[in-house]
Amino acid sequence: MLECRGYAAQSADEALKPFSFKRRDVGPKDVRIAIAYCGVCHSDIHMARNEWRSTIYPCVPGHEIVGEVVEVGSAVTRFKKGDLAGVGCLVDSCGHCQSCQEGLEQYCETGSTMTYGSDDPEMGTPTFGGYSDAIVVTEKFALNIPKNLDLAAAAPLLCAGITTWSPLRHWKAGPGTRVGVIGLGGLGHMALKLGRALGAEMTLFTTSQGKVEDARQLGAHHVVMSKDKEEMAQCAGKLDLIIDTVAVKHPVEPYLATLKREGVLVFVGLPEDPLGFMPMDLASKRRSMSGSFIGGIPETQEMLDFCGKHNITSDIEMIAIKDIESAYGRMLKSDVKYRFVIDLKTLEKAA
Amino acid sequence: MLECRGYAAQSADEALKPFSFKRRDVGPKDVRIAIAYCGVCHSDIHMARNEWRSTIYPCVPGHEIVGEVVEVGSAVTRFKKGDLAGVGCLVDSCGHCQSCQEGLEQYCETGSTMTYGSDDPEMGTPTFGGYSDAIVVTEKFALNIPKNLDLAAAAPLLCAGITTWSPLRHWKAGPGTRVGVIGLGGLGHMALKLGRALGAEMTLFTTSQGKVEDARQLGAHHVVMSKDKEEMAQCAGKLDLIIDTVAVKHPVEPYLATLKREGVLVFVGLPEDPLGFMPMDLASKRRSMSGSFIGGIPETQEMLDFCGKHNITSDIEMIAIKDIESAYGRMLKSDVKYRFVIDLKTLEKAA
Repeated sequence: MLECRGYAAQSADEALKPFSFKRRDVGPKDVRIAIAYCGVCHSDIHMARNEWRSTIYPCVPGHEIVGEVVEVGSAVTRFKKGDLAGVGCLVDSCGHCQSCQEGLEQYCETGSTMTYGSDDPEMGTPTFGGYSDAIVVTEKFALNIPKNLDLAAAAPLLCAGITTWSPLRHWKAGPGTRVGVIGLGGLGHMALKLGRALGAEMTLFTTSQGKVEDARQLGAHHVVMSKDKEEMAQCAGKLDLIIDTVAVKHPVEPYLATLKREGVLVFVGLPEDPLGFMPMDLASKRRSMSGSFIGGIPETQEMLDFCGKHNITSDIEMIAIKDIESAYGRMLKSDVKYRFVIDLKTLEKAA
Repeated sequence: MLECRGYAAQSADEALKPFSFKRRDVGPKDVRIAIAYCGVCHSDIHMARNEWRSTIYPCVPGHEIVGEVVEVGSAVTRFKKGDLAGVGCLVDSCGHCQSCQEGLEQYCETGSTMTYGSDDPEMGTPTFGGYSDAIVVTEKFALNIPKNLDLAAAAPLLCAGITTWSPLRHWKAGPGTRVGVIGLGGLGHMALKLGRALGAEMTLFTTSQGKVEDARQLGAHHVVMSKDKEEMAQCAGKLDLIIDTVAVKHPVEPYLATLKREGVLVFVGLPEDPLGFMPMDLASKRRSMSGSFIGGIPETQEMLDFCGKHNITSDIEMIAIKDIESAYGRMLKSDVKYRFVIDLKTLEKAA
């Protein structure tokens, strides 16, 4: 077994701290990745602090993992030692159900295995994520990272990237479509970059005047102050698709009004509290609200290849792992442009 | 101008009572219909009592209108004197916008003219509905009623029928699809009949054990007690489409759980109060919630022709117009199987 070091939460109200644990040995279909960088996702906070009331402790968060392949199993075909590889939110699924057959492992009907916080039947522990020095994963769930991308800045593509890519593709964002994005954070800034590169006309909704210039540089054709009723009224009935990245309770009615007939508001941020809506706001123009959960492995690779081709990465701020709690604090104040990424070289000193 | 008699609400808190008013003379493209029967829709109560806070008084409700054509304009091509004709929820629309061009007049971008309660620019009054002895309407918004159908029982097809038909067709209910219906009232019983005839596998969700037998006779393959957690759990992830006909505040989470991946819950009942939902319940299986508003003229005719072919009408209870307030009272207690229809011959005595 592989001795690993990382950072874990031991309970909902304790700060993350150094933690040693074991991973399985590399099996025939596995690759072992020496983790270079790991992005910090809002879900990491929810999970570390048990805000979804499902956390098993100890919890090693992290599902935006990139690094170098350092060992491959005998049956591995897609990776060799020295390759760059990534791991996102998923490390396994049943492989047999309709969703798995369609490459939508995130919707696996028996439940996919999440990179951290799922049961790991082989180890008898929870799965442990990327706030650590290495990960062992079946090659099917390892992604190729285009070599031209900055490796640290590519890490957030594994969750923030695919989480916004999947609905943009599923609802066919592209030339001739108008796409709104609510919120300019980790997810929002990726939605702008990806939607723009796909050819859609992009509108950012924000409550913060300070984000207007950034939004334009990230790809927004239009920036709308969502609390300004006049600006919102000017968008009425215009959009085909809205990607709602807001992870806290918020009103939806003002955004629904900006959708055209059959337009879709898709939630990718997942608030803990219920949201309210009037069915009439849907029925009056046959609008929909939907939700999208990360993305499958084939579409994650498609997104990474697209990002390689268009040279798209996340805007990041690098941190040492010992600073993870203050990073969480800043994320809760939206004080990050636009994703923290942990440099795992800092683990050695910290552990 | 045409002298008409009907029943109107004069304010939100007065009972409906006899009312005399004028309609326009028959223009070149108009037909005049002597109203034989008019169905009583839940919207009539909402509007008469200003529960949507948009009612203009006096309010003559009624948008499930059938009768005989008694006069046609010089340019009318689809109707002649003596034909049966119907009028539903719409009497006009701009005719030029994208939605009108597509035959989806209910989503007219400048606002369609509703059968009652819209501005009638020609008359300087609100439009007046079918609780009356006659209506004048442009032939484009008049429907052919198949002769083989019981005329009184065909009236509710004009709203309850099309309101459920439109989402069943839009979301492709048919052989191989599983469709749920929430609530067995005027809309619900039509959804069962139409969905069954379209070839879908139908499940009725109800809170009333007393409706099980009726539901089966109306077309339900399965009847599920929606407050029974075990019965609901057995439906988890099974349905492609749910038609939610409930017009009062209700939880949606138990029903969302019965949808399979990419399943859609469509609201056709329109509660006055906001509903709550968790975005996670959508995202976990890329489910959607949508809403559908009556239907366009071409699809209304399609539905009527389908009903003619399959001999489908509403289950009705006939009332005299003087009994409208007690009918409203019974509807609010769900005490009608399944639609009240006013016999307009009773107007003469009542007015």
